[in-house]
Amino acid sequence: MISPIHPGLLCIVSGPSGSGKTTLCRAACEGGTAHYSVSATTRAMRPGEVDGRDYHFLSEADFLGRVEAGEFLEHASVFGRHYGTLKSEVLPRLARGQDVLMDLDVQGAALVRQHADEAVRRAHLDVFLVPPTLDELRARLAGRHTDAPETQARRLAAALEEIARWPEYEYTLLSDTREADLDRFRSILAAERLRSRRRLGLPGYA
Amino acid sequence: MISPIHPGLLCIVSGPSGSGKTTLCRAACEGGTAHYSVSATTRAMRPGEVDGRDYHFLSEADFLGRVEAGEFLEHASVFGRHYGTLKSEVLPRLARGQDVLMDLDVQGAALVRQHADEAVRRAHLDVFLVPPTLDELRARLAGRHTDAPETQARRLAAALEEIARWPEYEYTLLSDTREADLDRFRSILAAERLRSRRRLGLPGYA
Repeated sequence: MISPIHPGLLCIVSGPSGSGKTTLCRAACEGGTAHYSVSATTRAMRPGEVDGRDYHFLSEADFLGRVEAGEFLEHASVFGRHYGTLKSEVLPRLARGQDVLMDLDVQGAALVRQHADEAVRRAHLDVFLVPPTLDELRARLAGRHTDAPETQARRLAAALEEIARWPEYEYTLLSDTREADLDRFRSILAAERLRSRRRLGLPGYA
Repeated sequence: MISPIHPGLLCIVSGPSGSGKTTLCRAACEGGTAHYSVSATTRAMRPGEVDGRDYHFLSEADFLGRVEAGEFLEHASVFGRHYGTLKSEVLPRLARGQDVLMDLDVQGAALVRQHADEAVRRAHLDVFLVPPTLDELRARLAGRHTDAPETQARRLAAALEEIARWPEYEYTLLSDTREADLDRFRSILAAERLRSRRRLGLPGYA
Protein backbone atom coordinates (compact mmCIF):
# COMPACT_ATOMS: atom_id res chain seq x y z
CA MET A 1 0.00 0.00 0.00
CA ILE A 2 3.03 2.30 -0.16
CA SER A 3 2.44 4.78 -2.94
CA PRO A 4 3.61 8.31 -3.55
CA ILE A 5 0.56 8.91 -5.77
CA HIS A 6 -2.09 8.28 -3.11
CA PRO A 7 -1.86 9.10 0.56
CA GLY A 8 -3.57 6.54 2.79
CA LEU A 9 -7.20 7.10 3.70
CA LEU A 10 -8.13 8.57 7.05
CA CYS A 11 -11.56 7.10 7.66
CA ILE A 12 -13.62 8.20 10.66
CA VAL A 13 -16.61 6.09 11.71
CA SER A 14 -19.20 7.51 14.10
CA GLY A 15 -22.47 6.19 15.38
CA PRO A 16 -24.48 5.99 18.57
CA SER A 17 -23.58 3.65 21.39
CA GLY A 18 -24.28 0.08 20.27
CA SER A 19 -24.03 0.86 16.54
CA GLY A 20 -21.02 -1.44 16.18
CA LYS A 21 -18.62 1.23 14.91
CA THR A 22 -15.62 -0.15 16.80
CA THR A 23 -16.32 -3.70 15.64
CA LEU A 24 -16.67 -2.50 12.04
CA CYS A 25 -13.37 -0.57 12.08
CA ARG A 26 -11.47 -3.41 13.71
CA ALA A 27 -12.97 -5.99 11.32
CA ALA A 28 -11.95 -3.88 8.30
CA CYS A 29 -8.36 -3.81 9.59
CA GLU A 30 -8.13 -7.55 10.26
CA GLY A 31 -5.90 -9.40 7.85
CA GLY A 32 -5.40 -6.23 5.81
CA THR A 33 -2.94 -3.40 5.77
CA ALA A 34 -5.16 -0.72 7.33
CA HIS A 35 -4.34 0.49 10.82
CA TYR A 36 -6.88 0.83 13.60
CA SER A 37 -6.06 4.06 15.40
CA VAL A 38 -6.11 3.68 19.17
CA SER A 39 -7.30 6.75 21.09
CA ALA A 40 -5.61 8.20 24.16
CA THR A 41 -7.60 8.84 27.33
CA THR A 42 -7.24 9.89 30.95
CA ARG A 43 -10.09 7.70 32.14
CA ALA A 44 -9.24 4.68 34.30
CA MET A 45 -8.56 1.33 32.68
CA ARG A 46 -11.46 -1.10 33.07
CA PRO A 47 -11.16 -4.84 33.77
CA GLY A 48 -10.24 -6.67 30.57
CA GLU A 49 -8.86 -3.58 28.83
CA VAL A 50 -5.28 -3.53 27.58
CA ASP A 51 -3.13 -0.40 27.41
CA GLY A 52 -2.22 0.30 23.77
CA ARG A 53 -4.97 -1.97 22.42
CA ASP A 54 -8.18 -0.44 23.79
CA TYR A 55 -6.72 2.96 24.59
CA HIS A 56 -3.43 4.61 25.29
CA PHE A 57 -4.05 5.27 28.98
CA LEU A 58 -2.36 8.53 29.95
CA SER A 59 -2.17 10.50 33.18
CA GLU A 60 -3.90 13.86 33.22
CA ALA A 61 -0.51 15.65 33.35
CA ASP A 62 0.89 13.63 30.42
CA PHE A 63 -2.27 14.20 28.34
CA LEU A 64 -2.33 17.96 28.96
CA GLY A 65 1.41 18.23 28.28
CA ARG A 66 0.89 16.55 24.90
CA VAL A 67 -2.04 18.87 24.13
CA GLU A 68 0.28 21.81 24.90
CA ALA A 69 2.96 20.30 22.64
CA GLY A 70 0.48 20.01 19.73
CA GLU A 71 0.70 16.22 19.66
CA PHE A 72 -3.06 15.66 19.19
CA LEU A 73 -4.96 15.51 15.92
CA GLU A 74 -8.17 16.07 17.92
CA HIS A 75 -9.07 15.96 21.59
CA ALA A 76 -12.08 16.66 23.75
CA SER A 77 -13.42 16.23 27.23
CA VAL A 78 -16.45 14.07 28.07
CA PHE A 79 -17.70 14.05 31.67
CA GLY A 80 -14.35 15.43 32.89
CA ARG A 81 -12.25 12.77 31.15
CA HIS A 82 -9.98 13.63 28.23
CA TYR A 83 -10.00 11.69 24.98
CA GLY A 84 -7.94 12.30 21.88
CA THR A 85 -6.10 10.99 18.84
CA LEU A 86 -2.33 11.35 18.79
CA LYS A 87 -0.90 12.56 15.48
CA SER A 88 1.79 9.87 15.82
CA GLU A 89 -0.96 7.21 15.39
CA VAL A 90 -2.05 8.70 12.10
CA LEU A 91 0.17 11.05 10.14
CA PRO A 92 3.27 8.90 9.52
CA ARG A 93 1.01 6.10 8.24
CA LEU A 94 -0.94 8.31 5.84
CA ALA A 95 2.34 9.64 4.46
CA ARG A 96 3.42 6.05 3.70
CA GLY A 97 0.13 5.38 1.91
CA GLN A 98 -1.36 3.26 4.70
CA ASP A 99 -5.07 3.57 5.51
CA VAL A 100 -6.00 4.56 9.07
CA LEU A 101 -9.47 3.79 10.46
CA MET A 102 -10.87 5.11 13.70
CA ASP A 103 -14.13 5.43 15.55
CA LEU A 104 -14.88 8.83 17.03
CA ASP A 105 -17.91 10.49 18.54
CA VAL A 106 -19.64 13.26 16.58
CA GLN A 107 -17.62 15.90 18.44
CA GLY A 108 -14.24 14.33 17.53
CA ALA A 109 -15.37 13.65 13.98
CA ALA A 110 -16.33 17.32 13.53
CA LEU A 111 -12.87 18.41 14.75
CA VAL A 112 -11.10 16.14 12.26
CA ARG A 113 -13.43 17.26 9.45
CA GLN A 114 -12.47 20.89 10.07
CA HIS A 115 -8.76 20.11 10.37
CA ALA A 116 -6.67 22.60 8.44
CA ASP A 117 -3.77 20.28 7.60
CA GLU A 118 -3.66 19.55 3.86
CA ALA A 119 -2.52 15.93 4.32
CA VAL A 120 -5.44 15.29 6.67
CA ARG A 121 -7.96 16.92 4.33
CA ARG A 122 -6.75 14.94 1.35
CA ALA A 123 -6.91 11.65 3.27
CA HIS A 124 -10.18 12.28 5.08
CA LEU A 125 -13.57 10.61 4.72
CA ASP A 126 -16.26 9.83 7.26
CA VAL A 127 -19.04 7.33 7.69
CA PHE A 128 -22.02 7.37 10.01
CA LEU A 129 -23.19 3.94 11.15
CA VAL A 130 -26.73 3.73 12.47
CA PRO A 131 -28.94 0.84 13.62
CA PRO A 132 -31.57 0.13 10.94
CA THR A 133 -34.60 1.28 12.96
CA LEU A 134 -35.52 3.12 16.11
CA ASP A 135 -36.74 -0.15 17.66
CA GLU A 136 -33.41 -1.82 16.96
CA LEU A 137 -31.59 1.16 18.50
CA ARG A 138 -33.73 0.83 21.64
CA ALA A 139 -33.06 -2.90 21.84
CA ARG A 140 -29.29 -2.42 21.49
CA LEU A 141 -29.15 0.28 24.13
CA ALA A 142 -31.22 -1.85 26.52
CA GLY A 143 -29.17 -4.97 25.77
CA ARG A 144 -25.98 -3.33 26.95
CA HIS A 145 -27.20 -2.06 30.27
CA THR A 146 -29.66 -2.79 33.05
CA ASP A 147 -30.55 0.77 33.89
CA ALA A 148 -33.44 2.54 35.51
CA PRO A 149 -36.09 3.71 33.00
CA GLU A 150 -35.03 7.36 33.28
CA THR A 151 -31.39 6.44 32.59
CA GLN A 152 -32.53 4.45 29.54
CA ALA A 153 -34.58 7.42 28.35
CA ARG A 154 -31.54 9.72 28.74
CA ARG A 155 -29.37 7.26 26.82
CA LEU A 156 -31.91 7.07 23.99
CA ALA A 157 -32.21 10.86 23.83
CA ALA A 158 -28.41 11.17 23.59
CA ALA A 159 -28.30 8.55 20.82
CA LEU A 160 -31.04 10.32 18.84
CA GLU A 161 -29.18 13.61 19.19
CA GLU A 162 -26.08 11.97 17.69
CA ILE A 163 -28.08 10.27 14.94
CA ALA A 164 -29.56 13.62 13.90
CA ARG A 165 -26.05 14.56 12.74
CA TRP A 166 -25.84 11.87 9.99
CA PRO A 167 -26.09 14.50 7.20
CA GLU A 168 -22.68 15.91 8.26
CA TYR A 169 -21.05 12.65 7.19
CA GLU A 170 -20.11 11.75 3.61
CA TYR A 171 -21.61 8.28 3.94
CA THR A 172 -24.49 6.89 5.98
CA LEU A 173 -24.66 3.16 6.60
CA LEU A 174 -27.92 1.77 7.96
CA SER A 175 -26.55 -1.37 9.52
CA ASP A 176 -27.61 -4.79 8.36
CA THR A 177 -25.71 -8.01 9.17
CA ARG A 178 -22.11 -7.66 10.28
CA GLU A 179 -20.94 -9.20 6.97
CA ALA A 180 -23.11 -6.91 4.85
CA ASP A 181 -21.88 -3.86 6.79
CA LEU A 182 -18.27 -4.91 6.30
CA ASP A 183 -18.83 -5.50 2.56
CA ARG A 184 -20.37 -2.07 2.11
CA PHE A 185 -17.68 -0.43 4.24
CA ARG A 186 -15.00 -2.10 2.09
CA SER A 187 -16.72 -0.80 -1.06
CA ILE A 188 -16.55 2.70 0.38
CA LEU A 189 -12.83 2.35 1.09
CA ALA A 190 -12.15 0.85 -2.35
CA ALA A 191 -14.05 3.67 -4.06
CA GLU A 192 -12.44 6.39 -1.97
CA ARG A 193 -8.99 5.22 -3.07
CA LEU A 194 -10.07 6.12 -6.62
CA ARG A 195 -11.21 9.67 -5.84
CA SER A 196 -9.50 12.18 -8.12
CA ARG A 197 -9.07 14.67 -5.28
CA ARG A 198 -6.67 12.28 -3.51
CA ARG A 199 -4.57 11.66 -6.60
CA LEU A 200 -1.37 13.65 -6.92
CA GLY A 201 -0.92 12.93 -10.63
CA LEU A 202 -1.09 10.28 -13.35
CA PRO A 203 2.14 8.33 -12.87
CA GLY A 204 2.07 6.64 -16.29
CA TYR A 205 1.91 10.03 -18.02
CA ALA A 206 4.71 11.83 -16.18
CA MET B 1 -33.98 -0.98 -6.80
CA ILE B 2 -37.15 1.05 -6.39
CA SER B 3 -36.75 3.25 -3.37
CA PRO B 4 -38.20 6.58 -2.39
CA ILE B 5 -35.24 7.17 -0.07
CA HIS B 6 -32.55 7.07 -2.77
CA PRO B 7 -32.88 8.28 -6.33
CA GLY B 8 -30.98 6.15 -8.85
CA LEU B 9 -27.41 7.08 -9.67
CA LEU B 10 -26.61 9.00 -12.83
CA CYS B 11 -23.07 7.89 -13.58
CA ILE B 12 -21.12 9.47 -16.42
CA VAL B 13 -17.97 7.75 -17.69
CA SER B 14 -15.52 9.62 -19.88
CA GLY B 15 -12.13 8.71 -21.28
CA PRO B 16 -10.13 9.04 -24.46
CA SER B 17 -10.87 6.97 -27.54
CA GLY B 18 -9.89 3.37 -26.82
CA SER B 19 -10.18 3.70 -23.04
CA GLY B 20 -12.98 1.14 -22.97
CA LYS B 21 -15.60 3.46 -21.43
CA THR B 22 -18.49 2.06 -23.47
CA THR B 23 -17.50 -1.53 -22.71
CA LEU B 24 -17.25 -0.73 -19.00
CA CYS B 25 -20.68 0.93 -18.85
CA ARG B 26 -22.35 -1.84 -20.80
CA ALA B 27 -20.65 -4.56 -18.71
CA ALA B 28 -21.81 -2.89 -15.49
CA CYS B 29 -25.40 -2.95 -16.78
CA GLU B 30 -25.35 -6.60 -17.87
CA GLY B 31 -27.42 -8.88 -15.70
CA GLY B 32 -28.15 -6.02 -13.33
CA THR B 33 -30.83 -3.41 -12.97
CA ALA B 34 -28.83 -0.40 -14.20
CA HIS B 35 -29.76 1.12 -17.54
CA TYR B 36 -27.25 1.99 -20.25
CA SER B 37 -28.33 5.33 -21.66
CA VAL B 38 -28.25 5.39 -25.46
CA SER B 39 -27.32 8.74 -27.02
CA ALA B 40 -29.12 10.40 -29.90
CA THR B 41 -27.19 11.55 -32.96
CA THR B 42 -27.65 12.98 -36.43
CA ARG B 43 -24.64 11.19 -37.86
CA ALA B 44 -25.27 8.40 -40.37
CA MET B 45 -25.69 4.85 -39.17
CA ARG B 46 -22.60 2.71 -39.83
CA PRO B 47 -22.60 -0.94 -40.93
CA GLY B 48 -23.37 -3.19 -37.98
CA GLU B 49 -24.98 -0.44 -35.92
CA VAL B 50 -28.54 -0.83 -34.68
CA ASP B 51 -30.93 2.08 -34.13
CA GLY B 52 -31.86 2.27 -30.45
CA ARG B 53 -28.95 0.08 -29.36
CA ASP B 54 -25.88 2.00 -30.53
CA TYR B 55 -27.61 5.35 -30.94
CA HIS B 56 -31.01 6.81 -31.47
CA PHE B 57 -30.46 7.94 -35.05
CA LEU B 58 -32.40 11.15 -35.65
CA SER B 59 -32.75 13.45 -38.63
CA GLU B 60 -31.31 16.91 -38.25
CA ALA B 61 -34.83 18.44 -38.20
CA ASP B 62 -36.04 15.99 -35.54
CA PHE B 63 -32.93 16.56 -33.39
CA LEU B 64 -33.17 20.35 -33.56
CA GLY B 65 -36.92 20.25 -32.86
CA ARG B 66 -36.26 18.24 -29.71
CA VAL B 67 -33.53 20.67 -28.66
CA GLU B 68 -36.05 23.48 -29.10
CA ALA B 69 -38.62 21.54 -27.04
CA GLY B 70 -36.12 21.12 -24.16
CA GLU B 71 -36.01 17.34 -24.53
CA PHE B 72 -32.23 17.02 -24.12
CA LEU B 73 -30.31 16.63 -20.87
CA GLU B 74 -27.17 17.67 -22.78
CA HIS B 75 -26.28 18.05 -26.42
CA ALA B 76 -23.35 19.25 -28.45
CA SER B 77 -21.98 19.32 -31.97
CA VAL B 78 -18.80 17.54 -33.02
CA PHE B 79 -17.57 18.03 -36.60
CA GLY B 80 -21.03 19.25 -37.67
CA ARG B 81 -22.90 16.25 -36.26
CA HIS B 82 -25.22 16.61 -33.27
CA TYR B 83 -25.03 14.31 -30.28
CA GLY B 84 -27.12 14.38 -27.14
CA THR B 85 -28.84 12.59 -24.29
CA LEU B 86 -32.63 12.64 -24.22
CA LYS B 87 -34.14 13.35 -20.80
CA SER B 88 -36.60 10.52 -21.46
CA GLU B 89 -33.67 8.05 -21.34
CA VAL B 90 -32.67 9.23 -17.88
CA LEU B 91 -35.07 11.16 -15.66
CA PRO B 92 -38.01 8.71 -15.31
CA ARG B 93 -35.54 5.96 -14.36
CA LEU B 94 -33.74 8.03 -11.72
CA ALA B 95 -37.11 8.92 -10.19
CA ARG B 96 -37.90 5.21 -9.85
CA GLY B 97 -34.56 4.59 -8.11
CA GLN B 98 -32.92 2.93 -11.13
CA ASP B 99 -29.27 3.63 -11.90
CA VAL B 100 -28.41 5.08 -15.30
CA LEU B 101 -24.91 4.76 -16.75
CA MET B 102 -23.63 6.54 -19.82
CA ASP B 103 -20.40 7.34 -21.59
CA LEU B 104 -19.93 10.92 -22.67
CA ASP B 105 -17.04 12.97 -23.97
CA VAL B 106 -15.53 15.62 -21.69
CA GLN B 107 -17.76 18.30 -23.25
CA GLY B 108 -21.00 16.39 -22.54
CA ALA B 109 -19.81 15.38 -19.07
CA ALA B 110 -19.14 19.04 -18.22
CA LEU B 111 -22.67 20.00 -19.33
CA VAL B 112 -24.26 17.34 -17.11
CA ARG B 113 -22.01 18.30 -14.18
CA GLN B 114 -23.26 21.88 -14.38
CA HIS B 115 -26.88 20.85 -14.78
CA ALA B 116 -29.16 22.94 -12.58
CA ASP B 117 -31.88 20.32 -12.03
CA GLU B 118 -31.90 19.15 -8.41
CA ALA B 119 -32.77 15.53 -9.30
CA VAL B 120 -29.81 15.40 -11.69
CA ARG B 121 -27.42 16.95 -9.17
CA ARG B 122 -28.45 14.53 -6.44
CA ALA B 123 -28.05 11.51 -8.73
CA HIS B 124 -24.84 12.61 -10.43
CA LEU B 125 -21.34 11.17 -10.23
CA ASP B 126 -18.59 10.91 -12.83
CA VAL B 127 -15.63 8.69 -13.54
CA PHE B 128 -12.67 9.23 -15.83
CA LEU B 129 -11.24 6.06 -17.34
CA VAL B 130 -7.72 6.28 -18.65
CA PRO B 131 -5.29 3.73 -20.11
CA PRO B 132 -2.61 2.91 -17.53
CA THR B 133 0.30 4.51 -19.37
CA LEU B 134 1.08 6.76 -22.29
CA ASP B 135 2.57 3.80 -24.18
CA GLU B 136 -0.62 1.82 -23.71
CA LEU B 137 -2.69 4.79 -24.92
CA ARG B 138 -0.51 4.99 -28.05
CA ALA B 139 -0.91 1.26 -28.67
CA ARG B 140 -4.69 1.42 -28.30
CA LEU B 141 -5.05 4.38 -30.62
CA ALA B 142 -2.82 2.71 -33.22
CA GLY B 143 -4.60 -0.63 -32.85
CA ARG B 144 -7.92 0.86 -33.86
CA HIS B 145 -6.81 2.59 -37.00
CA THR B 146 -4.31 2.36 -39.83
CA ASP B 147 -3.73 6.05 -40.24
CA ALA B 148 -0.98 8.21 -41.63
CA PRO B 149 1.58 9.30 -39.00
CA GLU B 150 0.21 12.86 -38.87
CA THR B 151 -3.34 11.58 -38.29
CA GLN B 152 -2.03 9.37 -35.49
CA ALA B 153 -0.23 12.33 -33.96
CA ARG B 154 -3.40 14.42 -34.11
CA ARG B 155 -5.40 11.60 -32.50
CA LEU B 156 -2.82 11.29 -29.69
CA ALA B 157 -2.84 15.05 -29.10
CA ALA B 158 -6.66 15.03 -28.85
CA ALA B 159 -6.55 12.12 -26.39
CA LEU B 160 -3.95 13.87 -24.22
CA GLU B 161 -6.05 17.02 -24.20
CA GLU B 162 -9.01 14.99 -22.92
CA ILE B 163 -6.88 13.14 -20.36
CA ALA B 164 -5.66 16.46 -18.93
CA ARG B 165 -9.21 16.98 -17.69
CA TRP B 166 -9.21 13.98 -15.28
CA PRO B 167 -9.16 16.28 -12.20
CA GLU B 168 -12.66 17.53 -13.10
CA TYR B 169 -14.04 14.04 -12.42
CA GLU B 170 -14.89 12.69 -8.98
CA TYR B 171 -13.12 9.40 -9.70
CA THR B 172 -10.16 8.48 -11.87
CA LEU B 173 -9.69 4.87 -12.90
CA LEU B 174 -6.35 3.91 -14.39
CA SER B 175 -7.47 0.88 -16.32
CA ASP B 176 -6.14 -2.57 -15.54
CA THR B 177 -7.76 -5.81 -16.74
CA ARG B 178 -11.40 -5.63 -17.81
CA GLU B 179 -12.44 -7.62 -14.70
CA ALA B 180 -10.45 -5.42 -12.32
CA ASP B 181 -11.91 -2.28 -13.91
CA LEU B 182 -15.44 -3.66 -13.56
CA ASP B 183 -14.82 -4.61 -9.92
CA ARG B 184 -13.56 -1.15 -9.08
CA PHE B 185 -16.37 0.51 -11.02
CA ARG B 186 -18.90 -1.59 -9.08
CA SER B 187 -17.27 -0.55 -5.80
CA ILE B 188 -17.71 3.07 -6.83
CA LEU B 189 -21.41 2.52 -7.60
CA ALA B 190 -21.95 0.58 -4.35
CA ALA B 191 -20.27 3.32 -2.32
CA GLU B 192 -22.11 6.12 -4.09
CA ARG B 193 -25.46 4.58 -3.14
CA LEU B 194 -24.42 5.14 0.49
CA ARG B 195 -23.57 8.83 0.13
CA SER B 196 -25.45 10.92 2.68
CA ARG B 197 -26.09 13.68 0.16
CA ARG B 198 -28.30 11.33 -1.90
CA ARG B 199 -30.33 10.20 1.08
CA LEU B 200 -33.67 11.88 1.62
CA GLY B 201 -34.05 10.72 5.22
CA LEU B 202 -33.65 7.79 7.63
CA PRO B 203 -36.75 5.67 6.93
CA GLY B 204 -36.52 3.62 10.14
CA TYR B 205 -36.60 6.78 12.22
CA ALA B 206 -39.51 8.57 10.59
